[in-house]
Amino acid sequence: MSQDVCKIVDCTIRDGGLVNNWDFSVDFVRDLYRNLNAAGVEYMEIGYKNSPKLLKGADSGPWRFLDEKFLKEVIPQKLETKLSALVDIGRVDENDILPREESLLDLIRVACYIKDVDKGLELVRKFNSMGYETSLNIMALSHVLEHELTEAFRDIANSPVDVVYVVDSYGSMDNKDIGYLTEKFRSLLPNKLIGIHMHNNMQLAFSNTLVGVSKGAAFLDASVYGMGRAAGNCPTELLVSYLKNTRYELRPVLDVIQNHMLAIREKWEWGYIIPYMVSGVLNEHPRVAMALRDSDARDEFVEFYDKLTSPETTLQSAKGD
Amino acid sequence: MSQDVCKIVDCTIRDGGLVNNWDFSVDFVRDLYRNLNAAGVEYMEIGYKNSPKLLKGADSGPWRFLDEKFLKEVIPQKLETKLSALVDIGRVDENDILPREESLLDLIRVACYIKDVDKGLELVRKFNSMGYETSLNIMALSHVLEHELTEAFRDIANSPVDVVYVVDSYGSMDNKDIGYLTEKFRSLLPNKLIGIHMHNNMQLAFSNTLVGVSKGAAFLDASVYGMGRAAGNCPTELLVSYLKNTRYELRPVLDVIQNHMLAIREKWEWGYIIPYMVSGVLNEHPRVAMALRDSDARDEFVEFYDKLTSPETTLQSAKGD
Repeated sequence: MSQDVCKIVDCTIRDGGLVNNWDFSVDFVRDLYRNLNAAGVEYMEIGYKNSPKLLKGADSGPWRFLDEKFLKEVIPQKLETKLSALVDIGRVDENDILPREESLLDLIRVACYIKDVDKGLELVRKFNSMGYETSLNIMALSHVLEHELTEAFRDIANSPVDVVYVVDSYGSMDNKDIGYLTEKFRSLLPNKLIGIHMHNNMQLAFSNTLVGVSKGAAFLDASVYGMGRAAGNCPTELLVSYLKNTRYELRPVLDVIQNHMLAIREKWEWGYIIPYMVSGVLNEHPRVAMALRDSDARDEFVEFYDKLTSPETTLQSAKGD
Repeated sequence: MSQDVCKIVDCTIRDGGLVNNWDFSVDFVRDLYRNLNAAGVEYMEIGYKNSPKLLKGADSGPWRFLDEKFLKEVIPQKLETKLSALVDIGRVDENDILPREESLLDLIRVACYIKDVDKGLELVRKFNSMGYETSLNIMALSHVLEHELTEAFRDIANSPVDVVYVVDSYGSMDNKDIGYLTEKFRSLLPNKLIGIHMHNNMQLAFSNTLVGVSKGAAFLDASVYGMGRAAGNCPTELLVSYLKNTRYELRPVLDVIQNHMLAIREKWEWGYIIPYMVSGVLNEHPRVAMALRDSDARDEFVEFYDKLTSPETTLQSAKGD
């Protein structure tokens, strides 16, 4: 039986930080790193490498604005699992990035919308020249017209980026969509690896990731217990259980869930929650649903649905309501 | 765009009753029926039609041992949504079943293991002769060898049964398994409709059901908010959102979730819970995981995993431990 040769990028700290404002203890992050390493997970995304000078967030945990000195205290001894960080266009100060040989990071991932692919590739070139592995994560693909994508691919193909991601930001895509996009990415970018980053609004994050695998995707984003913004991500525990690769072990991931994630989930919410399901079905950003969950009307699903599907709501939104 | 022509069988009361011992109020069941009808759901499985004489369960709610007189009080006025009941081999007293013209039920479904297909078909013939639509739900398919299935199909093809179900009792099957089985069922039973009944242990119930649809399955089991034994079922709200059929409406299902299911879920648990995930991954009946969740060790996931994957546990189980 052939082994699956893909690599898992665990995003618990980075994407999960969007849920709890990066309020993870150093002990937890250390324990997660140890356990992901024991589970055979290839990469751990330990946070954002955005600049606190370019972004409000003084009250955020340290994983939002990773600092190399701090990182070396957290992870005094690198194990086999590589470390990754995400940056956003316009929010990263390139002077914050050390050359790779002085850094704990191995992979820097650049997230951008389709209109900013040129800016994304500029950063990719910079980080690549400093010795890092790089990826380009094109967000909100469900809102991108195909000719825009085809145009962007010309520049991407000629760039030094290692991995290009299919990102289902709104959790609105199904197996057919992901199969189609993964094949398209592979055929138009034959010299790049393809990554998959799914959201679980319609309980499709895991199965969509498996479709990506079957179409040749090589980098699979996941997070432990699915922790991630709104409906969350593909659960790491399902990937390590399912993929045919002798390096993966479920037990250490269960350890993290039992000893940490259950308590974190008591305090913070993510996952299959009806307003997120509705925004996924409607192919919309989850921000309106997140605002609902933060309000007294958190369980007023019918009213929420009526609002999102009424033409008048769109008019009011356009007026800034 | 072509419409999906399948029919949804909502099993909230029947399969959900396995969670709460059928403790549903008459008002709730009435409200569910009204809303499923408004949502365009074609069938509502309102319980089991097993006999209290053949099965312990004096403390169960009335939906476990459906009585026609009681049913007529609950649903004084049939709407478009048809009613269905499930029976188990050896637990149904045929004398309890009225001729269809005197009954509120339209469809009687017979659940059996592969070794009891002949007994299942005997019941099917009986109910068919009384005027009912019938289905045969072969459970635990992931433990059935293919030649057993092929042999059983000869008898099934020659029986009057309308629908034959692919049942993933242990929530252990993936998209490829369901695609394969649905195609096999269709090719060997060309004169029967094929049904799909999935469990959500690996968050694959919805996506597996969609694979069934793409392979021509016509009857889709689901339950509101996924309520069903252990990891639960394919959520009805996802099917009515997703399927391309103008009769389906999401709003009435959201109404049921908001006004009933949230409170029921507070009191009773089902869904993506780690011990159920583990039993799905290991292709085992969830009963050991259900016992764990009923014990003080409910969150001891690592110990549970060690037990289930240790060879000694199997020996102890064999000795009746």
